[in-house]
Amino acid sequence: MTENYLQLEAIFKKITSIHSASSILNWDKAVIMPSGGAETRTEQMATLGLIAHELLTNPKNSDLLKAAEHEASQLSDWNLANLKEMRRIYDHATIIPEQLVEAVTKANSKCEMVWRSARAENDFKKLEPYLTENLNLTRKIAEIKSERFNCSKYDALLDEYDPGLTTAKIDKIFGKLEQFLPNFINQVIEHQASKPAPLAINGNFPVDMQKELGLEIMKLLGFDFNHGRLDVSNHPFCGGTYGDIRITTRYSEQDFLPSLTAIIHEAGHALYESNRPQQYIYQPVSRARGMGIHESQSLLMERQVGCSIEFLELIQPIIASKLKVSGPEYTAENFYKIINQVKRSLIRVEADEVTYPAHVILRYNLEKDMIEGKLEIKDLPEAWRSSMQALIGITPEDDKDGCMQDIHWPMGAFGYFPTYSFGAIHAAQIFAAAKRAIPNMAVEIKQGNIHPLNNWLKENIHKYGSKYSTSDLLTKATGSDTDVDCFINYLQNKFLS
Amino acid sequence: MTENYLQLEAIFKKITSIHSASSILNWDKAVIMPSGGAETRTEQMATLGLIAHELLTNPKNSDLLKAAEHEASQLSDWNLANLKEMRRIYDHATIIPEQLVEAVTKANSKCEMVWRSARAENDFKKLEPYLTENLNLTRKIAEIKSERFNCSKYDALLDEYDPGLTTAKIDKIFGKLEQFLPNFINQVIEHQASKPAPLAINGNFPVDMQKELGLEIMKLLGFDFNHGRLDVSNHPFCGGTYGDIRITTRYSEQDFLPSLTAIIHEAGHALYESNRPQQYIYQPVSRARGMGIHESQSLLMERQVGCSIEFLELIQPIIASKLKVSGPEYTAENFYKIINQVKRSLIRVEADEVTYPAHVILRYNLEKDMIEGKLEIKDLPEAWRSSMQALIGITPEDDKDGCMQDIHWPMGAFGYFPTYSFGAIHAAQIFAAAKRAIPNMAVEIKQGNIHPLNNWLKENIHKYGSKYSTSDLLTKATGSDTDVDCFINYLQNKFLS
Repeated sequence: MTENYLQLEAIFKKITSIHSASSILNWDKAVIMPSGGAETRTEQMATLGLIAHELLTNPKNSDLLKAAEHEASQLSDWNLANLKEMRRIYDHATIIPEQLVEAVTKANSKCEMVWRSARAENDFKKLEPYLTENLNLTRKIAEIKSERFNCSKYDALLDEYDPGLTTAKIDKIFGKLEQFLPNFINQVIEHQASKPAPLAINGNFPVDMQKELGLEIMKLLGFDFNHGRLDVSNHPFCGGTYGDIRITTRYSEQDFLPSLTAIIHEAGHALYESNRPQQYIYQPVSRARGMGIHESQSLLMERQVGCSIEFLELIQPIIASKLKVSGPEYTAENFYKIINQVKRSLIRVEADEVTYPAHVILRYNLEKDMIEGKLEIKDLPEAWRSSMQALIGITPEDDKDGCMQDIHWPMGAFGYFPTYSFGAIHAAQIFAAAKRAIPNMAVEIKQGNIHPLNNWLKENIHKYGSKYSTSDLLTKATGSDTDVDCFINYLQNKFLS
Repeated sequence: MTENYLQLEAIFKKITSIHSASSILNWDKAVIMPSGGAETRTEQMATLGLIAHELLTNPKNSDLLKAAEHEASQLSDWNLANLKEMRRIYDHATIIPEQLVEAVTKANSKCEMVWRSARAENDFKKLEPYLTENLNLTRKIAEIKSERFNCSKYDALLDEYDPGLTTAKIDKIFGKLEQFLPNFINQVIEHQASKPAPLAINGNFPVDMQKELGLEIMKLLGFDFNHGRLDVSNHPFCGGTYGDIRITTRYSEQDFLPSLTAIIHEAGHALYESNRPQQYIYQPVSRARGMGIHESQSLLMERQVGCSIEFLELIQPIIASKLKVSGPEYTAENFYKIINQVKRSLIRVEADEVTYPAHVILRYNLEKDMIEGKLEIKDLPEAWRSSMQALIGITPEDDKDGCMQDIHWPMGAFGYFPTYSFGAIHAAQIFAAAKRAIPNMAVEIKQGNIHPLNNWLKENIHKYGSKYSTSDLLTKATGSDTDVDCFINYLQNKFLS
């Protein structure tokens, strides 16, 4: 290690602690805070954000980075990987002029606010000027970054959410899925229609009992309550900070499956967060390796594990005892049918495992065109409708359930959507590799022994943080880079057999 | 306003927001955080503390303060009061060399840790070297500050907790009480012994029911749940931040009165915090006017209001209904007897209204001697025992219930104790003034109409924040500076009639 490098470590440790404080404040805002606390909280978080930004963009950091980069030969592989992440974070933070950062922050915040009412009122015209402003500013940012990073504009945006992911890679993978899905969706729907429909669950499940059930399942999955919590918020998320990881869900008294599924999903994120490399926990290299890997860990738990018949057989008696239920609708087989049912639906967040990638591909094609100047906001509703028909075979009657359904564009997040489906593809691929390493995985899961899987994930994915690129991490763990064929095989085996 | 002054306001706004974020993190630590989160939390809070300290002690602030002080004629009275507070805070933060600050922080932290086990083991010898180190370092700080502020060493320490409070003032007031109390305590105990003893409460009160009761009483006192919460912690406190004030209590299933009393006490603090001047909420001038006023607001609610027969008559039916209790031990008269019972006790935090000041005077005399070099730690246990006998008429059998009972000295807080009794004296004095302004106060309280009192407190105390000195604030609100005779009269009327 060198003096310059150590100085950078000290600066990033401070920045990490500030982010970690903000993360707890953000959790509190979603879970605990009385509504009247909003004004003070906004001020607190803006102040902490500004201080972290100032610490990061201090011009002397540029000198330190250059000096440390010249001393690369004196640094360990972990230090080098850390330095690379510091450079990436520094460049992203400094490359955009402060004035443009401020303009885009304001525009996003305003647009998100307008979106809430415009969506409720199904009034795209109301949203249009604000979304246009968001897009124009994002185009400017993409242009500046694409020049600096020497890549396409859309690739420059992707880099913030999933470093290393490129349009070339997405096009190849989504291209295959776009070929595969429309016909496959038809086949699966036909196949499922030929069998008896699942029995509906229409109960009255008190929140307290559901919470007890959720806690029990979290324990089973290896969640450590000495280092975390389960609470309630409007939208489930995994928050908190290393050593204190807080997941949330929301409950409906009519049905316990959505809440339980959310808990399993967020627990997957939490396991990743809790196994990040402890030695570098205040350093960028310990952060999760992009959203495409983070989402793979949540989807692995939710779908590969949680939607499997073995897991459902394991938890069926727990469900029956915690919720005091019995009968044919509460069998593992019926749960399996319910959560694996495939439908054409308008809404992404309600979509099943099979149609979900089609929702994502639709958004990817549209936002790439928007960033590249090939599609304008005014033409978005019509483009949405025709894509929807082509990909999923239905057309929304209004924009509320069409191009206004997601918060991402109103909040300025262009380039995020692909990571959802890369998460799903990686989940299938990583789970397949884990199954090769643990040959009796199905039996282990059925017996409630999740430890071998967790340990494999820790040793092959979690413990590396951001040390490797996504491609290298996947190749080391599974033998290949993103493998869409593995995902397609998985879907075929699961849904047509 | 001047440019220099406005720059200072911007700096202090940042500092306030950081403190306010820390306050939420501190609340979370006491109420929510899983134990495994301690390490990350310590790092977060140390980082925020350091950043706030760096912002405050930046040498350019000295120039800004001097410049703004030269432009005093261009500043409003609020701005001037704010500037005065800025100066006081800046001086306290910068006058002690960084090395000494670091040494004392470490020594206090170590001593507090040793105290926890030494107290449990009743082993004063174990604590002695650490407490000696605390005292020696505090003496150094007191010496530096006394030279800078041109006052006695003990006064220099007082200034941090209760600006403007002096040894001269305390000696005069505690002198009178020290004359008055020993004989008065005898009289009250005899007087109460001549009447039937209160009936004991030995119930089984589920925490949920007690919480419902607490929330109801908080509403009655005017607590705004849109801007605050009630939770549970090991030691009751009032935390959170402006706009989001969070009080805590602790429950015993055997008795609901201690928990309820704590809630009323903390609600008094909360009402003060919620009425601080909103226009200056991010500025030092909006802060509470020292601990002697803060404690007066909690004690006013707890004792002047909460221990009055009118209030107990008001809440008796609420208690009966929320806890589903009835019988002679659950009458307002019996509650009154229980919470106003006077006993000679060894432990300050369990002491009643009459003996409490004696506990404080004992500590004041000892810590003043310690700071002035007249008493050494090794002689503390014996000094404690003889003072205890002289003031309260009992002697502890061991140091655990003697000089090791409080956390204050182990954590380095010398100069804090007097504010408890100044709070009690001010509470009686302020409540007497409020009663003169609201002649039918007893009837109002009995009818549950706390609003006139709250409004009077807001208009005469709360809304001024730190605009005036404690003396000026009291004189404006009550017609005189700290009035111990008013307190003595109150005790005589209440306990001997």
